[in-house]
Amino acid sequence: MSDRIEKDSIGEHTVPSGAYYGIQTIRAVENFPITGVSVHPELYVALAQVKKAAAEANAELKLLPGRIADAIIRAADEVAVGGLADQFIVDSIQGGAGTSINMNMNEVLANRALELMGLAKGDYFHCNPNNHVNMSQSTNDTIPTALRLAAYRLSLLLLEQMQTLREALERKEAEFDDVIKMGRTHLQDAVPIRMGQEFGAYSRVIGRDIERISRATNNLLAVNIGATAVGTGLNAKPEYIQLVVAKLAEDTGIPVRSADDLVDATQNADAYTELSAALKVCSVNLSKMCNDIRLMASGPRTGFGEIKLPSRQPGSSIMPGKVNPVMAEVVNQVAFQVMGNDHTICMASEAGQFELNVMGPVIAFNLLQSLKIMRNALVVFVDYALAGMEANRERCRSYVEQSFGIVTALNPHLGYDVAAQLVKEALRTGLSIKEIILERHLLTPEEMNEILDPIQMTTPGIAGEHLLKEQ
Amino acid sequence: MSDRIEKDSIGEHTVPSGAYYGIQTIRAVENFPITGVSVHPELYVALAQVKKAAAEANAELKLLPGRIADAIIRAADEVAVGGLADQFIVDSIQGGAGTSINMNMNEVLANRALELMGLAKGDYFHCNPNNHVNMSQSTNDTIPTALRLAAYRLSLLLLEQMQTLREALERKEAEFDDVIKMGRTHLQDAVPIRMGQEFGAYSRVIGRDIERISRATNNLLAVNIGATAVGTGLNAKPEYIQLVVAKLAEDTGIPVRSADDLVDATQNADAYTELSAALKVCSVNLSKMCNDIRLMASGPRTGFGEIKLPSRQPGSSIMPGKVNPVMAEVVNQVAFQVMGNDHTICMASEAGQFELNVMGPVIAFNLLQSLKIMRNALVVFVDYALAGMEANRERCRSYVEQSFGIVTALNPHLGYDVAAQLVKEALRTGLSIKEIILERHLLTPEEMNEILDPIQMTTPGIAGEHLLKEQ
Amino acid sequence: MSDRIEKDSIGEHTVPSGAYYGIQTIRAVENFPITGVSVHPELYVALAQVKKAAAEANAELKLLPGRIADAIIRAADEVAVGGLADQFIVDSIQGGAGTSINMNMNEVLANRALELMGLAKGDYFHCNPNNHVNMSQSTNDTIPTALRLAAYRLSLLLLEQMQTLREALERKEAEFDDVIKMGRTHLQDAVPIRMGQEFGAYSRVIGRDIERISRATNNLLAVNIGATAVGTGLNAKPEYIQLVVAKLAEDTGIPVRSADDLVDATQNADAYTELSAALKVCSVNLSKMCNDIRLMASGPRTGFGEIKLPSRQPGSSIMPGKVNPVMAEVVNQVAFQVMGNDHTICMASEAGQFELNVMGPVIAFNLLQSLKIMRNALVVFVDYALAGMEANRERCRSYVEQSFGIVTALNPHLGYDVAAQLVKEALRTGLSIKEIILERHLLTPEEMNEILDPIQMTTPGIAGEHLLKEQ
Amino acid sequence: MSDRIEKDSIGEHTVPSGAYYGIQTIRAVENFPITGVSVHPELYVALAQVKKAAAEANAELKLLPGRIADAIIRAADEVAVGGLADQFIVDSIQGGAGTSINMNMNEVLANRALELMGLAKGDYFHCNPNNHVNMSQSTNDTIPTALRLAAYRLSLLLLEQMQTLREALERKEAEFDDVIKMGRTHLQDAVPIRMGQEFGAYSRVIGRDIERISRATNNLLAVNIGATAVGTGLNAKPEYIQLVVAKLAEDTGIPVRSADDLVDATQNADAYTELSAALKVCSVNLSKMCNDIRLMASGPRTGFGEIKLPSRQPGSSIMPGKVNPVMAEVVNQVAFQVMGNDHTICMASEAGQFELNVMGPVIAFNLLQSLKIMRNALVVFVDYALAGMEANRERCRSYVEQSFGIVTALNPHLGYDVAAQLVKEALRTGLSIKEIILERHLLTPEEMNEILDPIQMTTPGIAGEHLLKEQ
Repeated sequence: MSDRIEKDSIGEHTVPSGAYYGIQTIRAVENFPITGVSVHPELYVALAQVKKAAAEANAELKLLPGRIADAIIRAADEVAVGGLADQFIVDSIQGGAGTSINMNMNEVLANRALELMGLAKGDYFHCNPNNHVNMSQSTNDTIPTALRLAAYRLSLLLLEQMQTLREALERKEAEFDDVIKMGRTHLQDAVPIRMGQEFGAYSRVIGRDIERISRATNNLLAVNIGATAVGTGLNAKPEYIQLVVAKLAEDTGIPVRSADDLVDATQNADAYTELSAALKVCSVNLSKMCNDIRLMASGPRTGFGEIKLPSRQPGSSIMPGKVNPVMAEVVNQVAFQVMGNDHTICMASEAGQFELNVMGPVIAFNLLQSLKIMRNALVVFVDYALAGMEANRERCRSYVEQSFGIVTALNPHLGYDVAAQLVKEALRTGLSIKEIILERHLLTPEEMNEILDPIQMTTPGIAGEHLLKEQ
Repeated sequence: MSDRIEKDSIGEHTVPSGAYYGIQTIRAVENFPITGVSVHPELYVALAQVKKAAAEANAELKLLPGRIADAIIRAADEVAVGGLADQFIVDSIQGGAGTSINMNMNEVLANRALELMGLAKGDYFHCNPNNHVNMSQSTNDTIPTALRLAAYRLSLLLLEQMQTLREALERKEAEFDDVIKMGRTHLQDAVPIRMGQEFGAYSRVIGRDIERISRATNNLLAVNIGATAVGTGLNAKPEYIQLVVAKLAEDTGIPVRSADDLVDATQNADAYTELSAALKVCSVNLSKMCNDIRLMASGPRTGFGEIKLPSRQPGSSIMPGKVNPVMAEVVNQVAFQVMGNDHTICMASEAGQFELNVMGPVIAFNLLQSLKIMRNALVVFVDYALAGMEANRERCRSYVEQSFGIVTALNPHLGYDVAAQLVKEALRTGLSIKEIILERHLLTPEEMNEILDPIQMTTPGIAGEHLLKEQ
Repeated sequence: MSDRIEKDSIGEHTVPSGAYYGIQTIRAVENFPITGVSVHPELYVALAQVKKAAAEANAELKLLPGRIADAIIRAADEVAVGGLADQFIVDSIQGGAGTSINMNMNEVLANRALELMGLAKGDYFHCNPNNHVNMSQSTNDTIPTALRLAAYRLSLLLLEQMQTLREALERKEAEFDDVIKMGRTHLQDAVPIRMGQEFGAYSRVIGRDIERISRATNNLLAVNIGATAVGTGLNAKPEYIQLVVAKLAEDTGIPVRSADDLVDATQNADAYTELSAALKVCSVNLSKMCNDIRLMASGPRTGFGEIKLPSRQPGSSIMPGKVNPVMAEVVNQVAFQVMGNDHTICMASEAGQFELNVMGPVIAFNLLQSLKIMRNALVVFVDYALAGMEANRERCRSYVEQSFGIVTALNPHLGYDVAAQLVKEALRTGLSIKEIILERHLLTPEEMNEILDPIQMTTPGIAGEHLLKEQ
Repeated sequence: MSDRIEKDSIGEHTVPSGAYYGIQTIRAVENFPITGVSVHPELYVALAQVKKAAAEANAELKLLPGRIADAIIRAADEVAVGGLADQFIVDSIQGGAGTSINMNMNEVLANRALELMGLAKGDYFHCNPNNHVNMSQSTNDTIPTALRLAAYRLSLLLLEQMQTLREALERKEAEFDDVIKMGRTHLQDAVPIRMGQEFGAYSRVIGRDIERISRATNNLLAVNIGATAVGTGLNAKPEYIQLVVAKLAEDTGIPVRSADDLVDATQNADAYTELSAALKVCSVNLSKMCNDIRLMASGPRTGFGEIKLPSRQPGSSIMPGKVNPVMAEVVNQVAFQVMGNDHTICMASEAGQFELNVMGPVIAFNLLQSLKIMRNALVVFVDYALAGMEANRERCRSYVEQSFGIVTALNPHLGYDVAAQLVKEALRTGLSIKEIILERHLLTPEEMNEILDPIQMTTPGIAGEHLLKEQ
């Protein structure tokens, strides 16, 4: 079957006869052979749903003939469940604020609708990508609306996994509650802490990250569909603007609402920078946690050796028996990627001018990637690293016994300066703190043991408080 | 008067006889001659208040003798209103997680307290920087608490100014409501918009920034004072932890509360990264707005010339009569600084290890600077640029009349393809869109004027909708 | 055909019978389902060549039996020209410093070698992924060496395209040499300039970018193959280290050399951060240039309108006849992506610890992507935007005639203050600068025309210098 | 003495009678109360030298009367050695591309010159800030030229200190050459290495950083003085352009040269982004090195404890005897600051438009700060941390003896899989690798000891190579 010829305002171009996409898609493919990476499929799903809602609203308002609307809606339903996926062929990074993504969708839906109506592909008189499929719409409202929708869905998936992570951390908090170990500040021995307290702290900050990301996710629900070209709603009836949002909410089950100010919602990209910033803040926290975990797992013989991670794969092609903390490392790398992506998103957002941010494609590329890879990394991190992580209780306790940090508990009794002298003397003589205390009769053995009880040091309070002289 | 000699666990050092600071401050000055920039004074104010609250709580719990507590409190009160400012001499960037800032304060308060008690400076037996002033405390809880307090105050000042900005933008929204101009997307002529709508959009995004920054600001109120070294509250009585927070809230009038998990609050720096991220998101929006304003003010003869900014200073040392948009430029630069600062803060936050983030000083340096310069820039931007900004109504209207973008309103009547042909023909022939419409009898003059009314194009609706054939 | 069972130090796993990859590849696929994006094929090409060179060197040193070496070499040759591409299935972001990439290659080559020897896949006694294919090697030297090689090749392709860009800019410099226009500083009218001078400036900075990127590219040539696990060359004979590099240079035609210090070359990632930094600096320049171009092309009626870009695709799904500067926009977006990637690379590089940077995979992912998308974007930018760009000479000249900036040339004759007064009077009265000069008899018409010749203003010199009074 | 009144094109303003600065400086102070941080003094030194060179050139070309030129030159000489420092009062972040810095200098030099000529301050008829001091100049060439000069000088100071660092690292390389320790990859025990090799690797990468920064520093030498407003040299005689550069080189002893293309050199900021990028790359390396050092110094009892850092200050206000790696921490923080500054510089550089980058002030602020703080931090790091650093030889050796990583040397003899089994068995049984080898008669004691010699493992080679069976 021979190619068909299509025409747009630039001129004519052949289109493969079997293709559902059309001339503008082909121009975009020619113009933007940049990354080789396709647009995230979730964006096409969302965009198809936007097209469906628009067709429904246009039909209800008698702007679009029922037969055409029906065909477009059926086509959109197919795409929304993954149909015709191979027809969406434009690159993730592209000029034109997403016009090529929008036109790719308009063309595919038009041709599929034509087919469903028993007409030939390319017979745009009966169903036109711009006049019918894109009716009452602009790239400038459909793409931001679809991006918000897609980001919303991916963000919910991420949040669900973050909840799983949080609960896994809480399980470790409970499991490790009685693991006494030395706390470290500046990587120097500080005072005793329980490992459960550390995992509790990780859990708490992830809890706040869930709140931060949730809030930013909810802000995605204010969409600008109906804004058309610059937010003024030109060519869109007021009834349409209300109706299209209602249809979209109904069709998707997602409580989208019309943004209070459509001019604002069309030109400002802060919904994306806000979400990306929340992801970045979370990434900072994840990276810190994984750094700690890798340090605790360091060894087995020349490191901290406080925990043991499950062996997931041979760690070295040359060093036999080596097992590396690969699941933590992959989270670190994902965190770095998300931070870099945030930088790109900010630059792109700052580059918006007047009524539109034309850098939408690179924003979408990075934002959807960040959402996806964070979730994916946390799935394997929880299942393959956190779940099977074990504490080396013996090692942890022996650290506490060896360490000088416990002298801190002596401050209220002997004063900071005397305590500091004890440490110096211990370092000099090789004696333990306790030995020196007894030798110098600073405390009775009973007093000493009461004050220097490590478990007690992990909760607020002055050990041996009753021994203090009344001031 | 000769220097005094002080001693710490490292050894002895002379201290100028008149100095309120002591040996550890001097060591810090020697160790960290880095930026030459002092720590933000607001941090010392807050830290003095923390010291006061601790002394009050310690005294009430009979841990600290009343006479010493009173002297410390009086000294802290002096510092909290700016007293002894020249005694705080350590550098903004320093190793040690703020220990030097904390010890500088401890030493100054101890010596001033000694003086108030009629004792000699350096007579630490009667009032010791560590044992008395720092009683029940650690750098690791005093510095984070003081930083949260200082950031909270500066953030409130910023928010107040952002509210002023928002109102100034809303005034412009009203003032420019009837200024019809061409909207631009991709810097290309799009469809008409009212300048008031543009300033409304700026106002709206600033409104959201106020919400974002407010939320992050409120999260600063959970403080970790009482956490001591690693968050376990070692050496701090549980009653003390409650009391010191209550005192701090009472003394400052700021509703600080004890963090739910002190281990978490001591090691995680997300309160700062969250606030910095909110400032960054706002900076992106401010920079975009100022870019627009500089574009609108471009000219006077070879640019857009849509607005006129007040002349604030001669714009050039060589080009006579030149006036530059300097107040917008300074906001751009502040925005870039805040974005860079956010990067530093994230790197520093990610570098936290185990029980503490030791990179606190560089976080404080950047966060407090960001808060300060954003506020300062917005004050002058509102007063010197926004307040006196004028629209060039004539120019804006003439743009609308010259432009082709109005053909968009013809889509529902003539279809996208015919409208596109009109533009091409207008470009080719030099005729106006209206002339071609009439010449080709595409619409009657009445229909045409109804459909192409620019004011109508700035609100939702299909111009001349009643002219559409029933579908 | 049933699956085979393979075994490693973790345990057993089934492997699809037809697969060339083996158990460790499968573990990696299970462990790292992160981005869904494959490792850049250029890295596999380079890694196959590293494996070939190692096999050659090992054979020559009698460490590896000739028959096995031959089979490995043949297998590597196949992969190096794109063979078995579907067998490389691990994710771009992965824990383990590239061990999974290396083992995927080792397994594929081992099984293909077995097949070439007429043996069954999985019969690792006769050709073992670790003992034979990976002989004298470690992930820690093969992956960095392959990454340097792959980056080198992609960088040469980029540099070639940058040279094309530079020449295209120089052609525009020549073509627009006589286009007189108003220079702008602060987006305000400054003094006349020729458009050719502007394109010359773009060309010059791209020239420096070529130098910067070239230098960084050359630094990639110092490879660490032979370093084995930590750079000490354990298990690698000194002769091998020399030989493997020589073979690699010979096989690839790329003048790689052994790094002076293999410990250094194994742990430090500065070769990548240096190249990425050079790409970032270039991106900043490209983005600035494209911003200028988009401004010059703004309009057609309400913008600067100084140049016209080729129409590449309809610019809007709603605004008929609109054409957007999409080829410049895509370069902006690529620039933002490269800047974000650089951030990720720096974070990952900073995270190196002791003898190795384990964040190699995310570095490779971002670095190779940056190299690829910069080249791709510049290809289409040159061909589709720069080549067909036209100057609007008339418009440019009319700007010069309207503008006040020309008064700068009067400074040496009338002084800055008088010239500034002229501008104010012109703005007030609507008269032209020239009219006021004549009216106020400040210069004779001849003097005035000589001094205010715009072409002359675009080259150094004091117009009408002979008219100046001797000082 | 009463204030004087000055006038500019905006209007009149009072000026304190004693002030050397004038009306435009005052306007700038009013307009830009942003950071409270003064411009780096080195920029004023350099700018004064630029003014001197211009006055010399103008005088030699008879453009400026000798008496005025002499006075300006004397005034500039005073400022160049730090005179009148309190007269330079504009803020570091300011709108206007540095016009306020330039005018502050022009006004101070004019008034000081007037004073030297026995005339009253403000008597600008006899020596005018614009017409005389700024003759043949523009902000757009004087400020970039002065910034390059200032950055050049600070960069040389930094490079000198980097050389000191490098040598200190080399001394440690020699000192620690015989300290055998376990190498670590992934923070997991790898194979033996000598501590000297590690410090050698640090030294090597610093060596490359010196090269990178040197190259970027040399690129600063191409200055644009003579470019005037937009690079075309309007109002500057060609002879002047040559002469002013020659004078500047002569006066400063710095081999500045005229940029090949002054339009390019005026609008492009790549000289700064290039230098900042080089500083950033170096910062990444410094941070990695300091991270290693902090890890090696971790302990004393619960960390790696491989090195001991000099005690510089008490490490804690609560934990007696604690000493922290504060000198390394401050380098980390400086590194983060430099990376953030680089981000700001890139954003600002990207924001250049057409003939000028108006964001120069924020670029200068960040670039000069980066140069300064890097140098300062490296001074104290070398003197206070590196010089006195000691290796814990005993601990390092005991790690090697305990570790399993040595089995890697068995690969060529027993194969990877057998070696991996040994590790597993050792972990299971608690036996040492050597015990198992002997028990299972895998090697003779002599063979074993030869193969497992740790010192030998730190250099290339197959231990016990002669034992290998001929293949």
